[in-house]
Amino acid sequence: MRVKELLLGAAYYNEYMPYERIDEDLELMKKLGFNTIRIGESAWSTWEPKDGEFDFSKLTDVLEAADRHDMNVIVGTPTYAIPSWLARKYPDIMSINKDGQLLYGHRQYFDITNEHYRYHCNRIIRKMMQAVCDYECVIGYQVDNETRAADAAGPDVQALFVEKMRAEYPDIDDFNKEFGLDYWSNRIADWDDFPDVRGTINASIDAAYRRFLRYCIADFIAWQADIVREYAKEGQFVTHNFDFDWRDCSYGLQPLVNQVAAGRALDVAGADIYHPSQNELTGAEIALCSDIARSIKQENYLLLETQSQGRFNWLPYPGQLRMQGYAQLSGGANSIMYWNWHSIHNSAESFWKGILSHDLEPGYTYHELSGFTTELEGISRHLINLRKNNKAAILLDHVALTAFDEFKNDLKVDYNDLVKRIYDACYEMNLECDIIYKSAKLDKYSLVILPGLYSVNDMLVGKIRNYIENGGHIIATFKSFFADRELKIFADTAPHGMTDVFDIKYDMYTKPGSATVMFDDGQEFDINDHIELLELNGDSVPWARYSHPYWNRYAAVTHSKYGNGSATYIGCMCSKAAMSKTIRRVAMIAGIQLPRYQFPLIRRSGINDLDECVEYIFNYSMENNTIICEHGCKNLIGGEHYDMGEGITLHPWDVAILIDDEDE
Amino acid sequence: MRVKELLLGAAYYNEYMPYERIDEDLELMKKLGFNTIRIGESAWSTWEPKDGEFDFSKLTDVLEAADRHDMNVIVGTPTYAIPSWLARKYPDIMSINKDGQLLYGHRQYFDITNEHYRYHCNRIIRKMMQAVCDYECVIGYQVDNETRAADAAGPDVQALFVEKMRAEYPDIDDFNKEFGLDYWSNRIADWDDFPDVRGTINASIDAAYRRFLRYCIADFIAWQADIVREYAKEGQFVTHNFDFDWRDCSYGLQPLVNQVAAGRALDVAGADIYHPSQNELTGAEIALCSDIARSIKQENYLLLETQSQGRFNWLPYPGQLRMQGYAQLSGGANSIMYWNWHSIHNSAESFWKGILSHDLEPGYTYHELSGFTTELEGISRHLINLRKNNKAAILLDHVALTAFDEFKNDLKVDYNDLVKRIYDACYEMNLECDIIYKSAKLDKYSLVILPGLYSVNDMLVGKIRNYIENGGHIIATFKSFFADRELKIFADTAPHGMTDVFDIKYDMYTKPGSATVMFDDGQEFDINDHIELLELNGDSVPWARYSHPYWNRYAAVTHSKYGNGSATYIGCMCSKAAMSKTIRRVAMIAGIQLPRYQFPLIRRSGINDLDECVEYIFNYSMENNTIICEHGCKNLIGGEHYDMGEGITLHPWDVAILIDDEDE
Amino acid sequence: MRVKELLLGAAYYNEYMPYERIDEDLELMKKLGFNTIRIGESAWSTWEPKDGEFDFSKLTDVLEAADRHDMNVIVGTPTYAIPSWLARKYPDIMSINKDGQLLYGHRQYFDITNEHYRYHCNRIIRKMMQAVCDYECVIGYQVDNETRAADAAGPDVQALFVEKMRAEYPDIDDFNKEFGLDYWSNRIADWDDFPDVRGTINASIDAAYRRFLRYCIADFIAWQADIVREYAKEGQFVTHNFDFDWRDCSYGLQPLVNQVAAGRALDVAGADIYHPSQNELTGAEIALCSDIARSIKQENYLLLETQSQGRFNWLPYPGQLRMQGYAQLSGGANSIMYWNWHSIHNSAESFWKGILSHDLEPGYTYHELSGFTTELEGISRHLINLRKNNKAAILLDHVALTAFDEFKNDLKVDYNDLVKRIYDACYEMNLECDIIYKSAKLDKYSLVILPGLYSVNDMLVGKIRNYIENGGHIIATFKSFFADRELKIFADTAPHGMTDVFDIKYDMYTKPGSATVMFDDGQEFDINDHIELLELNGDSVPWARYSHPYWNRYAAVTHSKYGNGSATYIGCMCSKAAMSKTIRRVAMIAGIQLPRYQFPLIRRSGINDLDECVEYIFNYSMENNTIICEHGCKNLIGGEHYDMGEGITLHPWDVAILIDDEDE
Repeated sequence: MRVKELLLGAAYYNEYMPYERIDEDLELMKKLGFNTIRIGESAWSTWEPKDGEFDFSKLTDVLEAADRHDMNVIVGTPTYAIPSWLARKYPDIMSINKDGQLLYGHRQYFDITNEHYRYHCNRIIRKMMQAVCDYECVIGYQVDNETRAADAAGPDVQALFVEKMRAEYPDIDDFNKEFGLDYWSNRIADWDDFPDVRGTINASIDAAYRRFLRYCIADFIAWQADIVREYAKEGQFVTHNFDFDWRDCSYGLQPLVNQVAAGRALDVAGADIYHPSQNELTGAEIALCSDIARSIKQENYLLLETQSQGRFNWLPYPGQLRMQGYAQLSGGANSIMYWNWHSIHNSAESFWKGILSHDLEPGYTYHELSGFTTELEGISRHLINLRKNNKAAILLDHVALTAFDEFKNDLKVDYNDLVKRIYDACYEMNLECDIIYKSAKLDKYSLVILPGLYSVNDMLVGKIRNYIENGGHIIATFKSFFADRELKIFADTAPHGMTDVFDIKYDMYTKPGSATVMFDDGQEFDINDHIELLELNGDSVPWARYSHPYWNRYAAVTHSKYGNGSATYIGCMCSKAAMSKTIRRVAMIAGIQLPRYQFPLIRRSGINDLDECVEYIFNYSMENNTIICEHGCKNLIGGEHYDMGEGITLHPWDVAILIDDEDE
Repeated sequence: MRVKELLLGAAYYNEYMPYERIDEDLELMKKLGFNTIRIGESAWSTWEPKDGEFDFSKLTDVLEAADRHDMNVIVGTPTYAIPSWLARKYPDIMSINKDGQLLYGHRQYFDITNEHYRYHCNRIIRKMMQAVCDYECVIGYQVDNETRAADAAGPDVQALFVEKMRAEYPDIDDFNKEFGLDYWSNRIADWDDFPDVRGTINASIDAAYRRFLRYCIADFIAWQADIVREYAKEGQFVTHNFDFDWRDCSYGLQPLVNQVAAGRALDVAGADIYHPSQNELTGAEIALCSDIARSIKQENYLLLETQSQGRFNWLPYPGQLRMQGYAQLSGGANSIMYWNWHSIHNSAESFWKGILSHDLEPGYTYHELSGFTTELEGISRHLINLRKNNKAAILLDHVALTAFDEFKNDLKVDYNDLVKRIYDACYEMNLECDIIYKSAKLDKYSLVILPGLYSVNDMLVGKIRNYIENGGHIIATFKSFFADRELKIFADTAPHGMTDVFDIKYDMYTKPGSATVMFDDGQEFDINDHIELLELNGDSVPWARYSHPYWNRYAAVTHSKYGNGSATYIGCMCSKAAMSKTIRRVAMIAGIQLPRYQFPLIRRSGINDLDECVEYIFNYSMENNTIICEHGCKNLIGGEHYDMGEGITLHPWDVAILIDDEDE
Repeated sequence: MRVKELLLGAAYYNEYMPYERIDEDLELMKKLGFNTIRIGESAWSTWEPKDGEFDFSKLTDVLEAADRHDMNVIVGTPTYAIPSWLARKYPDIMSINKDGQLLYGHRQYFDITNEHYRYHCNRIIRKMMQAVCDYECVIGYQVDNETRAADAAGPDVQALFVEKMRAEYPDIDDFNKEFGLDYWSNRIADWDDFPDVRGTINASIDAAYRRFLRYCIADFIAWQADIVREYAKEGQFVTHNFDFDWRDCSYGLQPLVNQVAAGRALDVAGADIYHPSQNELTGAEIALCSDIARSIKQENYLLLETQSQGRFNWLPYPGQLRMQGYAQLSGGANSIMYWNWHSIHNSAESFWKGILSHDLEPGYTYHELSGFTTELEGISRHLINLRKNNKAAILLDHVALTAFDEFKNDLKVDYNDLVKRIYDACYEMNLECDIIYKSAKLDKYSLVILPGLYSVNDMLVGKIRNYIENGGHIIATFKSFFADRELKIFADTAPHGMTDVFDIKYDMYTKPGSATVMFDDGQEFDINDHIELLELNGDSVPWARYSHPYWNRYAAVTHSKYGNGSATYIGCMCSKAAMSKTIRRVAMIAGIQLPRYQFPLIRRSGINDLDECVEYIFNYSMENNTIICEHGCKNLIGGEHYDMGEGITLHPWDVAILIDDEDE
């Protein structure tokens, strides 16, 4: 979705406030240059304190104040956290998972397919929409929040699942065969014998169940969006707040949600991106998650949550808040919404701090933000609606992600580890990549990277072969082209359907032990996990071999011309440096030009509404660093002009935003 | 409770013995100088093998023998371990906690508020009292043992809890507001909607529940004490065996029991102190736990259990048993009771060894003890009823302890870690401290230390301000003056109510990263966790700042004069050495004189019944170490006289007990 | 069981195949020299897809093909994995253990004592036997597979257990006394009060329950064998596939199964041995497990499963598959059966790879095997039915194993760690040992080693005393002669009944701390855990003492002559080198001659059907290594002759099989 102005603001929870201070808060926000707040999504029990009794006063108080202060509002439906009376009324609402039935208390612990839950969702959403939709300040709606299926596996959900499997496999023998159910006597002759999925040892069934749960989430979001649209006024958008895999920060593809599927029902994708800070601020997490967020609807998205402080170790160093904001914009965000305005005085997230600390006074964070937003004011029209024009793409896939988990065995790395390693390698050499999925058109890219594309079907194999034949370049890693949709491993030579393209085959893989990757130029790199022992066919060139007493006759990285393009295969979980070396070589072959500088100097760029090429240059470092201008340009910040060949020195945690002004 | 003679002895379990040998055992004890045994507390199923059938013969056999051998007996009620018939008769007796209902088997796994449990407790206690109270040997009773509430959260207990909350918060809106229940839709409009406390994500509710469980324990102990007193004869005391937090040894404040509240019903506090030994014997655990035990009723206490051997790694080196015994006495114990007399041949604690090994012959431990008790004989009258006269105190608080756990987030240290670090710093510089609580009178102390006093109310703040104004000196650490009783964080400037006293404020805290503490004299110390970035107001003096590229403008340790006293604030979990340095400075300002020697030379002192000042000097070391007498004195052990300025050399693991003999 | 030819082959799962290829597979096998397949044991739901409907076509297809290809078949009953319809029909079949009732899905998760399970077992076994027993190719049957009792503790099983205890202890007072139930009020006056065994804290009761579960397994295997024998034809054997303790590989005594008891019902023991490979291939795991497998029926056994590849890190280096095969034979195996023929394309064990990779083409592993089997062809008649003639034995015991677990306390090592340390010490010095049990005749051995023989009775003590008196030599370790059958620790001087034999006593044990073992020749060794402080009586010689500031007066290793033999005691979990030194000394005293070479050069030997002494010499190393012939001999592989004194150089991972040809 394109915006007319940058949305700048924070989540605001009037209902959590220790005392009444809406006007004071909105004034503080306005002073900060904020123009938008996000409200309403967490407090169902406040809006409906008893079954059927509604009280939106704490919500409408804010809307009225927002109208007064000319502040935009995004209203969220409150359905991701239910009131206790609802759980009490329908005990079966709480999810039954592998550990038994969850107790009421935590958000997202209920079964989103439950009919009673849906009944009450429907009612609260309609009541809320009636209460809010007429306020002028309301610019859009967020349906639910970070939706989860809570690993629900109660009888009703399982019945739905079995029904779905049955529809996909009308002949139960096909089902048994595809899932290999003869193994350990798991075969069923009758769908009624389908055992409790929580006990299954069949990794493919578990994977199918996880796919089913992702389907339930997409279905639920679409259902909510439909209800909301019955009330939404012209110009009000519908969004959802998507998150990512989580490892103490946002980290790669969200395993539990198929965001592309769920995003179809939305006008614009929303996302929350939480990332390391202080010495660990590299921008890589922001960049990866931005690129994923942009991929949901293949356009700009709304950043609905990010930290101003967040956790203990994220208190930003001076200058970092500004840098983080620009990093978000450089990925295509059309908003920066902090979570949250004020630190919470009780309950569970008191130390996930907001812009205001518990004293509710403008302090360090407020003042840091203030500097940033003042600077933004003059330039934000250059920064919104950024269009990317990337020549490279990384193809992500939920089925592959699940496969890595389900068929883990001794594998130490998981899918997102691999994705992150490859993404980080690209990021650090300033090779900007789109995130794409199996359904994507490949032709617009010179280079497509396939990290662990475990599961493929013939159509996809055909598409990829075609792409290469027509001049495309791909890099695939170990565990690509390995299994079908249900993760049944192909019974022919690996990599399936691609042996002639890569000009390799393999039937052995093992742990690396002491093995290293030795490139043809003598450079040697570490391996962290898993080595496939690649045998060369015909014309394939071994860019690297394993250095190992017994496996040194096998290739580790191979490159093969095919048609007008090329296919490169990385056979092991090698170090980031080895990934980098390989990607850099292929990028050169694919005709992609990379800047001479690299991390900690990061370039992120795109085309803005004015058709200017906007280049962000970040210095993720505690030292000064200098780049040499490759063409005449102007720094949007400050307006200084630089000639081609001139150096631009960036201070620690500093950023320049360059636009071409050759012809000015 | 004052005693006439030192109680010396052991727990004795006639019912565990592989064969009849009461007289043999009592004779062995007498030879050892023992005068007291503790019996009866663990074997309800022996005393009441079937519902309503009682058999105290194994108990009265011991009492008769004790009468014969002139041995004192402390009889324990057996209620902390129930018979299987009782659990079978009333299945709801077993505690239901977060993991479901506990199975019968372990002690203390039942719900102490259960009415059936209480009914049978009442009966067995009365029957037992009738059976034992007339024996001359009985000097006192122990009600229950290390009482636990077993995290009981079955419907009945929860109903009690809700009732209690309701009584505290007659207006449910106050309750919602105080606990921040709007958060994540946890608000309730009706007490009947109060959800299962086991599922709560509201840390304040969980904390309140834990406070409630502590209340149940105090209530239960008082209830038992009342029953016992109906039978107890003149001169027989009532006690309880309290324990401490446990980390492979006794360690700080017992989180589960409010010992002061529970102690009100008792004539004398009892305690069990288990501590490291061998190379790890420092006396610090004995000292801390002694000081806590003494704080329960603010007088001498009974050491009801300590190890003679205990666990594998506690087998004492030659001389250590003696040293440990004196260390216990130096903390105010009026008894030394070992657990237990004999090693157990079966069940669960066979390798928690007693004075006799499994061969039931006097061996190494017996003979080590024998040397100690012989030495004690001549001097114990100087050692009992020791009165402390400490000028410093450390204020401990259960609410703060719970807060550290509940609002932990990324915090690595917990409350007892912090308490122990501060206590150990004091201990090692030979600054003896009383343990006090919020209700304490502060005026008798020159220095009061407040480790992590997370939760305060206005009255307490007032009392502390007053104390300083009147010339008192305090040291508070990070996370003090932070939240109210229910752990709701104050919405004003931190530290709450004390910004003018400390002359500081802060609204930021983070992980230390590479930060260190740099004192004004250039000394630099490590930080282990959590730094608050302190801003100075007016006259506060920054004793130390953070050494860090970005946080170096903030203070780490501040000192401020206020009224006639002073207030010192330690903003981070710094190393013990940094704590020491700060405490030592304040002690000097507070006019407290410290000895010139420090750990491994430890001094513990007090006034005895003869009004002598008794000074224990311990050498916790494998080397000889020497102190210089600061006044003429006599070593009670051996009787040697030392002039002022003369050296006393202590051998490894040796102790001297000095009394002033200037005027002899 | 003696065989006429070496059985060579693999598990074959026609029912798991992605497409029909029986004949192709059998031809590939024949080319490899395979003569046997093992089928049928995992797929009950395939043989009985619905209750009472049977379909053995996928089984009989294989049998028909096997008849055609002249391939032997071992048919397994399918009872270790049940169909889902069975679990659905009788929900109580699924085991109830400490974590509640297990869900259907995993193999071996049901209660083998359940009457419904037994009913359906009986029926499927009979139906299957009728379907297969007439095929000529069938040479034997495997009843069930790696049988487990699933920690079943539902009401019915517990009732069985109580019944059994009751039968063993007609007087409940004896029971209470023996198990020490007065402790913590666990005493029962009525068997009906016997509490749920899952909650017990009484380690002896838990140990008795585990013994009971082992009894259930033996009973179940015998019951199956009886049914199978009703159908088996003349010459068809009955076996079972036993496994071992598991720590990422087969590792010592299987705690859950008394294999000797279970083996009584069988004609021949079967076993699966999975072991480390690549750099970690030492042969020690193969040797230990072989020796245990041979001990089950004190004769040759069938190796029913071993890896060709197995897990990721077991892909064998070139030459290792051959070496592993010979290592198996050198331990007395009469078969080498790989698990499995083909890698599985789905479900749970897809990366436990078979001889064929997923492409089902002969690849690396196939060709490695092919070299080995070709070589075997000419010589295997020399290798089968190998009879061992060991002079040393190691006595293993389930009661001791359980004791180490149940009475663990701070002990870090468990029983199998200790067993493995001692076994490895023997293995590496080429001291071949039989594995024996308490019931064994000791007289045929010069040396008997007793690792942690925790539990003994008077008869056993008498037997051991007798053995030594008559000239036998024993080595016992710490925690031997310590407790009775129910693990009640003896109440007399330790080691019980043996103080005069060892001429030592002790009543103290502790953690080693800094202690080392210092031998009388000045050699010093590490200690990993647990030291008993041994005091010498009379004539005992302290071979080693503890080097420690306080424990140096105690012995660590003692040696004592007794009668015509000797008794050596190792008081601590010392390093393997210290174990070796001790064992080597005793071996010398016992007149056992050891070769001059040691690991990585390993000798394993025996007498074959031709009464030749067969000596395997293995080089477990990446280097060449040479032995000097101690007599003239011929290498069966290749046929080369070596004179006495001549060197035989073994290449990396190479093996020689020598037979004496002095007199040729």
